[in-house]
Amino acid sequence: MRAVQVVGYHTKMQMTEVPDPQVEGPLDVVVRIGGAGVCRTDLHVLEGQWEAKSGVELPYTIGHENAGWVHAVGDAVSNVVVGDKVILHPLMTCGLCRACRFGDDVHCENSKFPGIDTDGGYAEYLLTNARSVVRIDDSLEPAGVAALADAGLTAYHAVAKAARATRPGDVCVMIGAGGLGHIGIQVMKAISAATIIVVDRNQAALDLALEIGADHVVLADGRHVAQVLEHTGGNGAEAVVDFVGEGGATAEGIAMLRRAGSYYVVGYGENIDVPTIDVISTEINFIGNLVGSYNDLQELMVLAARGDVRLHTTTYPLADFQRALDDLDNGRVRGRAILVP
Amino acid sequence: MRAVQVVGYHTKMQMTEVPDPQVEGPLDVVVRIGGAGVCRTDLHVLEGQWEAKSGVELPYTIGHENAGWVHAVGDAVSNVVVGDKVILHPLMTCGLCRACRFGDDVHCENSKFPGIDTDGGYAEYLLTNARSVVRIDDSLEPAGVAALADAGLTAYHAVAKAARATRPGDVCVMIGAGGLGHIGIQVMKAISAATIIVVDRNQAALDLALEIGADHVVLADGRHVAQVLEHTGGNGAEAVVDFVGEGGATAEGIAMLRRAGSYYVVGYGENIDVPTIDVISTEINFIGNLVGSYNDLQELMVLAARGDVRLHTTTYPLADFQRALDDLDNGRVRGRAILVP
Amino acid sequence: MRAVQVVGYHTKMQMTEVPDPQVEGPLDVVVRIGGAGVCRTDLHVLEGQWEAKSGVELPYTIGHENAGWVHAVGDAVSNVVVGDKVILHPLMTCGLCRACRFGDDVHCENSKFPGIDTDGGYAEYLLTNARSVVRIDDSLEPAGVAALADAGLTAYHAVAKAARATRPGDVCVMIGAGGLGHIGIQVMKAISAATIIVVDRNQAALDLALEIGADHVVLADGRHVAQVLEHTGGNGAEAVVDFVGEGGATAEGIAMLRRAGSYYVVGYGENIDVPTIDVISTEINFIGNLVGSYNDLQELMVLAARGDVRLHTTTYPLADFQRALDDLDNGRVRGRAILVP
Amino acid sequence: MRAVQVVGYHTKMQMTEVPDPQVEGPLDVVVRIGGAGVCRTDLHVLEGQWEAKSGVELPYTIGHENAGWVHAVGDAVSNVVVGDKVILHPLMTCGLCRACRFGDDVHCENSKFPGIDTDGGYAEYLLTNARSVVRIDDSLEPAGVAALADAGLTAYHAVAKAARATRPGDVCVMIGAGGLGHIGIQVMKAISAATIIVVDRNQAALDLALEIGADHVVLADGRHVAQVLEHTGGNGAEAVVDFVGEGGATAEGIAMLRRAGSYYVVGYGENIDVPTIDVISTEINFIGNLVGSYNDLQELMVLAARGDVRLHTTTYPLADFQRALDDLDNGRVRGRAILVP
Repeated sequence: MRAVQVVGYHTKMQMTEVPDPQVEGPLDVVVRIGGAGVCRTDLHVLEGQWEAKSGVELPYTIGHENAGWVHAVGDAVSNVVVGDKVILHPLMTCGLCRACRFGDDVHCENSKFPGIDTDGGYAEYLLTNARSVVRIDDSLEPAGVAALADAGLTAYHAVAKAARATRPGDVCVMIGAGGLGHIGIQVMKAISAATIIVVDRNQAALDLALEIGADHVVLADGRHVAQVLEHTGGNGAEAVVDFVGEGGATAEGIAMLRRAGSYYVVGYGENIDVPTIDVISTEINFIGNLVGSYNDLQELMVLAARGDVRLHTTTYPLADFQRALDDLDNGRVRGRAILVP
Repeated sequence: MRAVQVVGYHTKMQMTEVPDPQVEGPLDVVVRIGGAGVCRTDLHVLEGQWEAKSGVELPYTIGHENAGWVHAVGDAVSNVVVGDKVILHPLMTCGLCRACRFGDDVHCENSKFPGIDTDGGYAEYLLTNARSVVRIDDSLEPAGVAALADAGLTAYHAVAKAARATRPGDVCVMIGAGGLGHIGIQVMKAISAATIIVVDRNQAALDLALEIGADHVVLADGRHVAQVLEHTGGNGAEAVVDFVGEGGATAEGIAMLRRAGSYYVVGYGENIDVPTIDVISTEINFIGNLVGSYNDLQELMVLAARGDVRLHTTTYPLADFQRALDDLDNGRVRGRAILVP
Repeated sequence: MRAVQVVGYHTKMQMTEVPDPQVEGPLDVVVRIGGAGVCRTDLHVLEGQWEAKSGVELPYTIGHENAGWVHAVGDAVSNVVVGDKVILHPLMTCGLCRACRFGDDVHCENSKFPGIDTDGGYAEYLLTNARSVVRIDDSLEPAGVAALADAGLTAYHAVAKAARATRPGDVCVMIGAGGLGHIGIQVMKAISAATIIVVDRNQAALDLALEIGADHVVLADGRHVAQVLEHTGGNGAEAVVDFVGEGGATAEGIAMLRRAGSYYVVGYGENIDVPTIDVISTEINFIGNLVGSYNDLQELMVLAARGDVRLHTTTYPLADFQRALDDLDNGRVRGRAILVP
Repeated sequence: MRAVQVVGYHTKMQMTEVPDPQVEGPLDVVVRIGGAGVCRTDLHVLEGQWEAKSGVELPYTIGHENAGWVHAVGDAVSNVVVGDKVILHPLMTCGLCRACRFGDDVHCENSKFPGIDTDGGYAEYLLTNARSVVRIDDSLEPAGVAALADAGLTAYHAVAKAARATRPGDVCVMIGAGGLGHIGIQVMKAISAATIIVVDRNQAALDLALEIGADHVVLADGRHVAQVLEHTGGNGAEAVVDFVGEGGATAEGIAMLRRAGSYYVVGYGENIDVPTIDVISTEINFIGNLVGSYNDLQELMVLAARGDVRLHTTTYPLADFQRALDDLDNGRVRGRAILVP
């Protein structure tokens, strides 16, 4: 089959012919790829940023946001059959460690990460296992949802936590209405009646935010902390979900918090740097957020099937992977770039 | 009655004769003081550290850890009667704001703080209201429990949160086995089966920690992070409760956390300064902790009545308040200093 | 002022002139009534069904679903001012007992119930206290929301519990789409992404259910248990909210439950009669539901102000109370009957 | 190897020679049995009570409370190695269905139940899989803990739920201090500071209850409901855990509940038969309880290793299985009967 591989750092990826993956173990699943998201992380991989962390041996096939059709299954696979449309949870997990046994499989002690430390989805087929495949509704297409596998799942996970901690009338500020943020807004709208205030530096992003569920939008122009406080009667928000995490977002976000409020860290870059006396005197919390669990992904697919969460995508044939990467690098992609067979 | 008052900052307190407080409103309660805790905060008040924050008008009566007997009640008081032994929640709260209505009365929007912004308990009588008085068991004495009103309540509140998030086999590290910490250890032991590891710079504090419930103790001698990790099979602890919050405790404490673990901030002084990428990649949380609620104080009094939480105290007659303050300032108090009538 | 009073059981109510209520205590609030819901319970009061339970002394003013404008307040009232539009929580609670201190004020140990055991809202003015008045949004009118004070609040309370226990893709069956049920459907739709299946004997009620948020409706014609199971892939629903509670609803509802599912009891009449072996072998739960808390009512008013919850009402001048009661008794009221000044 | 098999219903079990079980799949685990609990359910199996439900084909090996040493493992087993001491969760679960993925593996859609519907542990070896084996502490012996695998785990599961819903000062009534109850008391004592009241018909059981953690005991002599109410100031208990479920226990237990209290159903036999009006007017809950999850069993083993939960056992050589069954049937076993190699 054809696969796009990292053959060296700081050099271009190459499409090559590799053997088709085969089912070997009883829980193995081979997926025919229908859509593979092109993500900024893929550019970072090529720059060598993950080299030490992943320890992956080159060449290998990249691509960590994958969806498609079940092509072959091992003997013990009971949750999908050949032909099923599926999206792939980004991690392959063991199902045996205590974290897995609690449903918190993201903290699996023995996980693999296709596209990062083993072969991923810029290819015709991908080998995964039964614990990673989520069946999707007939109304959805792999190319339409692939980008929800990682970016969307992260947004869902953080926002669902925030939603469980808020009640009608509580305010949730979302900082950043880009890739993750615009999924987060739709999720919050679908699963809660919290008041949603969206902060972004980009007016177009704010316009979209209003269309898809924001109650108020605030342009990040220097007066935004004051404006958010104004929208909350001077008290601040019960929840701040920060999809940015750099450029001063954390200090501003903390200033938007109400007493006993919680700050959900999603975007990253800068440090959280906050006096402990401020943490205790207002009794605020900081909640870390990694990608969501397998069950989170099932739930996100329910929202997608209901039409509650929609994603803008631009598709590229697999052979045009370089153009997709270039477009992403140059800010020319509208929505998310997806490689299709 | 006699009362010890702050008459000016950076000058000594004075005992003077002031009018007895009277019941005026229907929810008013006058308490005859049986014990008033002498706290480091009292020294800070005198140094003017609270001047701007409290806005209190001088002279006023100091003392914010109070217990005694109900001396007089207003018409609408239904939860105590004259003669009841009571401990006083540190805040007088409104009962009408949304926080009060959720039982989260510490975040009351209209609270007063006797001993800080209104007359406190270094006196024969104190005026409070029905929402602040917690009846205590016959087996307890006001002088014995007064110091639980604020310091103990803070420890209880934080540790009870941590206990609710842990299960048998989970590890809770407590940094600091001093005033708050040694209450925290006893509380955790009483309400959970988490494994308790106590870290302190003082061997005597660690010896006491072992006596009152710690499973393991670790001397903070530079190798303590490594030792805690060793006790947890290299994984770190599900919970770290930090009663210190300065001198590098936060960075060390974070290094002791397991993936998805939570850091409970109680002590304060330095900043939490942590890269957002560490927060999200390990999905850790930082949980702020202020003093506990009225119901928390009721629960702590249950533990005290069962003998699950004990406090070492040294009593001083009210007239000897200056000696108590001097002993505290000079590190000469064993346990907590309590003024008694 | 004019007030409609119960002057004897099994005899008609009478409108009489009574003294205007006055503020006496510091937390008293006098409300000028803008709308008073006419409820089936009012008919039951007249039939003497509450005589023993309430112990109320006749004559007294009836009416327990009230909203209006603040007319006068006591000295200590800090949450409303004269002129505020308010809805009244059905109970007057003490704020001092442990239940009140947890925000679970419905289980207050010292509550009064205007319209049932003290003077209610079929009148020009009503005396309540600061703990019962919830300010409503400018866009709402007392006559429009009065019926949410009790019936709506009960539906909100039960459905919000069920919503907190469900996730996208989980199924919530609601039995009964009448007065409470049609509020419940709107609430569930607003605060969760659960799949809503509504069961009712009345096709018109089902048509309305579909309009206001039901995903599926099932006519209760004897095949409804089978049909619900079919909608859930044969597994049953994670939650069943039963607004009926009689005529066999409980046995049918239990048969619709999935393993580990929860049955929310709201309507009442018959017994729950279920073998303990069925309870343990499927690990199902039965959750009782009384009226909601003060904070629940605040949240319901947020949903009303957002337009998420709407109520059909028919207004009658206070003087026409008898016609309203007759219409209710004869099934001639469309939506809820509301008395207005 | 030798195995004790059910060869027909209403006839005695027989010890026969059968082939040793072999590892076939990559997650298979063969355990050398060190202890197999003899349970009343085994007698019921022989009486044919499980015939229709389990659909097991005769002959098969009985025994569902098993512990021992890992004897052989498949290629993919990462959580145990040969030689490990283990206790076996009663179910073999799939790890793929949504319930398994939430850690609620007891509701696995594809589980097997060794000793009931496939070969169990009255034998020298047993075939299970990696998802069922829990490593135990060096200080524990298989024969000592085997009986915790099912009976103990059920008690742990129910009591841990109750513990999470109670706070210091809350009262938990336990009905029945027999096999499950005396584990339940020890668990509650270890993980909470609730006040424990134990009700039983047997004074000896109550004496033991006091020794192992009960705060109060009440003889079930007809006055027990009144006595429990007296111990709770007339209010009733926040939690009732019913290990009996027959002979009127449920009606009596409900009468012991406080408003908003929860009734945990564990024992079974009779019906819960309660008016819905009582359920809603007091807002009580009924919580079903099946056996605990894999993680629950890990936690129970932590309590056992700490010495917080102890079990009285009487051992019988495997060859004496008939004597063990006869002793059980005739009430001659002290504690639990355990078959050992």
